Amino acid sequence: MSGDFYDFQNLLTDEEKAIVERTREFLRAEVAPIANESWANAEFPHQIVKGFAELDIAGLAYRGARSLLTGFLAMEMNRVDPSIATFFGVHSGLAMGSVNRCGSDEQKERWLPAMARMEKIGAFALTEPNGGSDVAGGLQTTARRDGDTWVLNGAKRWIGNATFADLVVVWARDEADNKVKGFVVEKGTPGFVATKIEHKMALRTVQNADITLTDCRVPEANRLQKAHGFRDTADILRQTRGGVAWQSVGVMMGAYDLALAYAKERVQFGKPIAGFQLVQDLLVKMLGNVTASLGMVVRLAQLQDEGVYRDEHSSLAKAFCTSRMREAVGWAREILGGNGIVLDYNVGRFVADAEAVYSYEGTREINSLVTGRAITGLSAFV
Amino acid sequence: MSGDFYDFQNLLTDEEKAIVERTREFLRAEVAPIANESWANAEFPHQIVKGFAELDIAGLAYRGARSLLTGFLAMEMNRVDPSIATFFGVHSGLAMGSVNRCGSDEQKERWLPAMARMEKIGAFALTEPNGGSDVAGGLQTTARRDGDTWVLNGAKRWIGNATFADLVVVWARDEADNKVKGFVVEKGTPGFVATKIEHKMALRTVQNADITLTDCRVPEANRLQKAHGFRDTADILRQTRGGVAWQSVGVMMGAYDLALAYAKERVQFGKPIAGFQLVQDLLVKMLGNVTASLGMVVRLAQLQDEGVYRDEHSSLAKAFCTSRMREAVGWAREILGGNGIVLDYNVGRFVADAEAVYSYEGTREINSLVTGRAITGLSAFV
Amino acid sequence: MSGDFYDFQNLLTDEEKAIVERTREFLRAEVAPIANESWANAEFPHQIVKGFAELDIAGLAYRGARSLLTGFLAMEMNRVDPSIATFFGVHSGLAMGSVNRCGSDEQKERWLPAMARMEKIGAFALTEPNGGSDVAGGLQTTARRDGDTWVLNGAKRWIGNATFADLVVVWARDEADNKVKGFVVEKGTPGFVATKIEHKMALRTVQNADITLTDCRVPEANRLQKAHGFRDTADILRQTRGGVAWQSVGVMMGAYDLALAYAKERVQFGKPIAGFQLVQDLLVKMLGNVTASLGMVVRLAQLQDEGVYRDEHSSLAKAFCTSRMREAVGWAREILGGNGIVLDYNVGRFVADAEAVYSYEGTREINSLVTGRAITGLSAFV
Amino acid sequence: MSGDFYDFQNLLTDEEKAIVERTREFLRAEVAPIANESWANAEFPHQIVKGFAELDIAGLAYRGARSLLTGFLAMEMNRVDPSIATFFGVHSGLAMGSVNRCGSDEQKERWLPAMARMEKIGAFALTEPNGGSDVAGGLQTTARRDGDTWVLNGAKRWIGNATFADLVVVWARDEADNKVKGFVVEKGTPGFVATKIEHKMALRTVQNADITLTDCRVPEANRLQKAHGFRDTADILRQTRGGVAWQSVGVMMGAYDLALAYAKERVQFGKPIAGFQLVQDLLVKMLGNVTASLGMVVRLAQLQDEGVYRDEHSSLAKAFCTSRMREAVGWAREILGGNGIVLDYNVGRFVADAEAVYSYEGTREINSLVTGRAITGLSAFV
Repeated sequence: MSGDFYDFQNLLTDEEKAIVERTREFLRAEVAPIANESWANAEFPHQIVKGFAELDIAGLAYRGARSLLTGFLAMEMNRVDPSIATFFGVHSGLAMGSVNRCGSDEQKERWLPAMARMEKIGAFALTEPNGGSDVAGGLQTTARRDGDTWVLNGAKRWIGNATFADLVVVWARDEADNKVKGFVVEKGTPGFVATKIEHKMALRTVQNADITLTDCRVPEANRLQKAHGFRDTADILRQTRGGVAWQSVGVMMGAYDLALAYAKERVQFGKPIAGFQLVQDLLVKMLGNVTASLGMVVRLAQLQDEGVYRDEHSSLAKAFCTSRMREAVGWAREILGGNGIVLDYNVGRFVADAEAVYSYEGTREINSLVTGRAITGLSAFV
Repeated sequence: MSGDFYDFQNLLTDEEKAIVERTREFLRAEVAPIANESWANAEFPHQIVKGFAELDIAGLAYRGARSLLTGFLAMEMNRVDPSIATFFGVHSGLAMGSVNRCGSDEQKERWLPAMARMEKIGAFALTEPNGGSDVAGGLQTTARRDGDTWVLNGAKRWIGNATFADLVVVWARDEADNKVKGFVVEKGTPGFVATKIEHKMALRTVQNADITLTDCRVPEANRLQKAHGFRDTADILRQTRGGVAWQSVGVMMGAYDLALAYAKERVQFGKPIAGFQLVQDLLVKMLGNVTASLGMVVRLAQLQDEGVYRDEHSSLAKAFCTSRMREAVGWAREILGGNGIVLDYNVGRFVADAEAVYSYEGTREINSLVTGRAITGLSAFV
Repeated sequence: MSGDFYDFQNLLTDEEKAIVERTREFLRAEVAPIANESWANAEFPHQIVKGFAELDIAGLAYRGARSLLTGFLAMEMNRVDPSIATFFGVHSGLAMGSVNRCGSDEQKERWLPAMARMEKIGAFALTEPNGGSDVAGGLQTTARRDGDTWVLNGAKRWIGNATFADLVVVWARDEADNKVKGFVVEKGTPGFVATKIEHKMALRTVQNADITLTDCRVPEANRLQKAHGFRDTADILRQTRGGVAWQSVGVMMGAYDLALAYAKERVQFGKPIAGFQLVQDLLVKMLGNVTASLGMVVRLAQLQDEGVYRDEHSSLAKAFCTSRMREAVGWAREILGGNGIVLDYNVGRFVADAEAVYSYEGTREINSLVTGRAITGLSAFV
Repeated sequence: MSGDFYDFQNLLTDEEKAIVERTREFLRAEVAPIANESWANAEFPHQIVKGFAELDIAGLAYRGARSLLTGFLAMEMNRVDPSIATFFGVHSGLAMGSVNRCGSDEQKERWLPAMARMEKIGAFALTEPNGGSDVAGGLQTTARRDGDTWVLNGAKRWIGNATFADLVVVWARDEADNKVKGFVVEKGTPGFVATKIEHKMALRTVQNADITLTDCRVPEANRLQKAHGFRDTADILRQTRGGVAWQSVGVMMGAYDLALAYAKERVQFGKPIAGFQLVQDLLVKMLGNVTASLGMVVRLAQLQDEGVYRDEHSSLAKAFCTSRMREAVGWAREILGGNGIVLDYNVGRFVADAEAVYSYEGTREINSLVTGRAITGLSAFV
C-alpha cells in the first residue's frame, strides 16, 4: 500500500486486516472499473450493492468493531471512489448510526439487520436550504403529533441516497416542545418528495436530493424513541465527522497513488518526471500530508474506542485533514498537467470530490470554531 | 467593477474604456446566460460568434491596440466564462498571432481580415501527446517537402477549436533541416482528422481535439514564410503566455465577484455571512490576490508596449498569477459551502476551469524554470 | 536592480531617479557597513543623520514630491536596513506628517524646516500598552486644559525614536470634549519619561520606548491646531500605512537580492545551488511576491497622487504585501541554510525585522477587517 | 498538557510517564526561569547540568528505553527551551549515539557511563564549511594513520557544545582507504581549536563552534572501532533526524501554549482576543499542526522500536514536521502582535529557534529528496 508509508495498517489485528483486504479487493474488482462512468452520468450503480452486502461491513461499528477498523474501511473506499464511500457512509454511519444511537430496542431489531444486509438502504435528512452551518438554530422542519401519527412539514437539502433510500431519517422540530426529534420515513410515504439535485460538480455518483415534506404522516412507532433533542443528533454527527476525516485521508491517498504512478510513467526531457526535483517536491509534500493526517485519525479512533472522544476532537481532525487533502489533490492534479482535467485519468475526479468532502458535515469554519471554543472557553460563532 | 479595487481600468483611455464596456455588455447579455448550459453539455455555442464579431476585437493587437487594452479584454471575458475566453484566445492570440508574426504579407492579407471578422476561426496545433513541457525537444510531427506541397505526419493533442476551425496552424519539424516550421491546414484537408477529447472536467465548452495527420498535404503557399525555427514559435507563445496571466486575473475576479455577492445574501446565525471575520478573511485574501496580480499584468503590458518584454517576464506572471488564482477560486468555493459544487452557482465552474488555466501554456514548473534560468544564469530543466 | 524585475523604477522621472540613486548610494556607503553592528548592539547610529540630512529627503511628500518617489525611497532604505528605514519613516512620515496635516501654518513654519534638515528629529506617540489594534477606542492618555497649558497624563508604548527625539507628537483624549488631540512635546519637558524597550528581537536598531506622562505640561501653542478628533489622526495613518506596504516590498527585495547572490556562490554537490530546481523554485516564488507587491504599491501611490485614496486601499496593501514579505524572507533564509541564522549574512536580520513590519501600523487582522468592512458594508471588528 | 490535545502521552506506561513528569518539573523549575537570559547573552548555563544529570535520562535509548519515551522527553525540553534541548540532543543523541553505535565494547564502557552521568559532555563534528547538504561527498577532513596514532587535519563548522565538550566525535576521511571514520577527540588535545560562532540569531544558548584540526593527534584507541564508512555515520543521523522531528513538535507546542495563554489574557475591543474568530483560526491551525505532527512522530517511534525504520521515514517526518512548526510559530508570533518581538514574552525566541531546527540535520530540500528517491526509485539530488 504505497500511500501508507508508515505502515499504520499494521496496527490492525490479522482478522481486521483480512476484512480490509477483502474490501479492497471488492473495490478494485467491482467499483474501480465503473467509477468514472457512474460519475460522468451522475448515476448510482445499484449493481454493486449486492457485492457490498456480501462484505458484511455495513453498521460494523454497532456490532462491536473498533473505530480503527471502520476508519480503515472508509479510507479504502475513498482511495477508489469518494462517491461510493459517501453512499456507504450515509447508509452505515448516518442512517444506521441514527437508529443505533436513538432507536428503541424494538426499532433497532426492526431496521438494523436488514440495513446491515443492505436490503434496506438508509438516508439522513438534517440539512435544510437555509441552514447549513447553523444546523441546530436554523432547523425549521416541523413535526406535529396527531394521535398515533406525526405530521411532518418542511424542506431538506443535500440529502444523500434520498432518491432511492428505503428508510430516510428525518429530523424535525416538535411544535409542542420545540425539541428536535428523529423520524424514520419509509419509501413511498405520501407527502414525501425527493428531487435529485442536478448539475453537481463533485461526488456526482451520490444521489443528493431536495426533499419536501407536505403533511407527511409517520406513525409514532417510526419516531426514534431516544432522540430527545439536538444533542442526540449531535452525538451521531460527532462519530461521522471523524469518519469524514478518515475519508479525506483516503481521498488524498488515492490521488497520491495515481500521481506517483503517473510520474513514474510520464517521460519529459528524456526521463520520467518522477526524477525531477520539482515533481518529487510535490509528491513528498503529498505524502507528508497523508502520513500526518493518518496519524491523526488513527489516534482519533483510539480516543473513540476508549470512550474519551469529544466534539472538538473530531472537529479538529475534520478541519485539519480535509485542508491537507485539498492541498494534496491539487498537487496530484498539477503533476498530471493537462491530463489531470480528463476524467479517464481519475485524479480530476478526486480533485472535484474533495471539494464536497471539504465542506460537508461541517465546514472548515464551523469545525474551527467548535475547536476554538473548546480550547479558549470562548464562543466565537456570532 | 467591484473586483478592480484599485481602479486599474482608469489607466485606459476613454476610447479603450468604451471598447471594454462594449465587450462587457456583450458578455453580460449574450455569454453569461448560456455559460453553464454550454459547459454542462460540453458544446460550443456557435450562435455567439456573430455578436463577438460585431465587437471587432479579434486580432486587435495586430491592428495597433495596446497590450493594456487586449489584457483588459481578456480579463473581462474570463470574469464571465473562461471557456469562451479560451476560444477567443486561441483564435485571436495563437492562430491570428501566428499568421501575423510568421506569415508573409500576402499570407496576412489572405487570412487576417477574414479572421478579424471571425468569418474564419483559427486553431493552433503545437502540443503533442508525448511532449507537454518539453514542447521544443519533444516535437515529433514531421513535414516533408514534395515539390510544391508539404506532407505532414504525426499527432497533436489538446488543440482548442480544432473540431470546427477553418484554419489550423500546425507546427512540424522539417525532415530536411530539422527546423520547426508552421503550416496553415484548411478545414477539410485530407489526412487531417480531429477527434474531440471527451470527459473533460474543465473548460468543457472549449472543443479540444486529438489530431492525427496522415500524409496530410499542404501547399507551400500555406507554409508560414517567416517561421524559421522554434524560436519564432516561442515568440508567439511569449505574447500569449502573458495573455494567460491576464486570463487568470479575470478568473479570480469573476469568482471573487460571485463569492462576495453570495456572502452578502447568505444568512446564517441570523446575519449575512459577509459579516463574519472568517468570511471577510477569505474575501480580503482573494481581493489581495486579484489586486496584486492585476498590478503585475498591467506592468507586463507596459513592458510589452515598450518592446522590452522577455520570455521570463511572461513566465513569472503566468506562474505567479495562476497560482494566486488557484488559491482564490478555492476560497470562493469555500464561501459558497455546498452550493459551491452546483454548477448553477457559477463558482464551481471557475474552480474547475482554473485547473486548466493553471497548466496550459506552460505549467508552473516550466515557467518557474524559465524565470529561474534568467535570474541565475543557470539552466535547471534537466 | 535585480529585484525590480519589471523595471518599475522606469515609471519615475529622471529627476526622481536621480534622488533614488543618490539615496541608494548613501545607503550602500554609509548604512550597509554598520547595519549589523548597530542591530547587534541595539544602538542607533547617530553618525548617519548628517549624511541623511544631506540627501534632503525628509518630509519630501510635504514639499510636492509624488508618492511614487517617496515610495521608492522607502523601498530602497528597507532593502538595506529596515531599522534605519523605520527611524526615517517615524520622523518623516509620522512626525512631520502630523505637523503637516494637523499643524497651523505657524506651527508648520516653526517645526517643519528644522525637521526637514533633520536638525530636529521627531517621534509619534499614539499606541498604548493596552490598546494595540483598538487604537481609537482604547486610547486612555488624557489632556486637561489649564489656562494656556495642557496637562498630559498616561502611558504610551512602542514609540520609535522616543529616547532621543527632539519633538514627540503625543495623542491624548481631551477630558473636556472626549476628542483625541495632538500635542508636540519637546525634549526635556518635565513629566515626560521615555524608557527604552529592551530585549527586542526585531528592528533592534530602532529605539522604541515606553513613555510615561505624569502631569506633563505643554503650552497651547504646541497643540496641533487642526487635530480635532481621531479622524485626523487616522488621515496620517492612512498615508503611513501605505508606506509600510512599500517598506515590506523593500524588505523582501533586500532578502531576495541576498539569497540570489548566495545561491550563485554556494556550491554543493559540485555546482552552485542556484542551479537546482528546488532553489530556483524558492527564488522565483520570492521574485513573484516582490514583483506583484511592487505592482500593487505603485498603483497605490498613483491613487494617492490622484487624491482618490481611501483607508481600505492602504489596508489591503499593508495586509497583502507584508504577508508576501513574510513568506519571502523565510524562503531567503531557507536558501542560506545554517548561515541564514548568522547575523553577518544579513538575511537573518531581514527575517527578524519582517516580524515587526508585519505587525506594526495595523496587524494583518485589523487591516483585513478594515478592508472587509469596505467591500461588504458590514463591520466585523467585534 | 494543553498542546497534547489527543492525549498521546497516554500511550506511555506509568513508569515512562513518571520520567516525563519529572523532566517537565525540572524544566519548569530550573530551565524556564533562565532561558531568556541565557539566550540574550548567548551563554550556556552550566549550572543546570547537575540537575539534568540527576534526571538520569542521558543516553536512555542505549539503556533500553523506548523511542516513544525519548521522543516525549525531547518534545518536553523543546516546549521550554530549544537551545537546551539541542545541547542535550547533541550530547545524548549524537555523541553518545556515536559511541554506542560505533564504539567497541571497551570504548562503550570507557565513555558511556560518564556521559550518562553527564560528567563528560559530548559533541559531534561532522559538518564542514563547504559541505552542508552534501555531507558525505563534501567531507574533506582527513585522517592519516601514523603508527598507534591518527593525525587529523581539516575544519568543521556548526559543532554544538564544542567550546566546552569533554569528548568530541570527529568524522574524517582516512587517506589510506578513503573511508569516513570516527575519532573521539578529548578536551585539550593539541591541534584542536574550537572557536565560538558569534552573532547567531537562533538557538543562541547553544555554543556552536568552528573547529580547526591542525595535525591533531588522536590515539588508535580513540578511533571508533565499528565506524567503517559513511553508512555507519548515516545510521546515527537516521535516529537523530527522527529526534529533530520530535523537537519541532515540542517547539510548536511551546509556542502554542504561550499564544493561547496570551490570547486569553490580552483584551482588545473590550474582550479577550481569544474570543475573536481570526484569533481562533490561528490557534486551531496551530493545534492541527501540533496534533498531526505528534501523530506522525509517535508512529515513527513505533517503527523505530519495531526495527523497521528506514532513512526515508525519518526524512519525511523531519521535512513535514519542521515545515508545520515554522508555520505554527509564525502564527503564535502573530497573535502576540508587537509583544511577539520582545524576548520576555518567549514566543519570539521560539520563532527564532525554529529557523535553526528547520535547517539542521538535513534541510527540507535534502530530506525531501531522500524521501523522493525512496518513493520513486529515482535520485534527483543532482
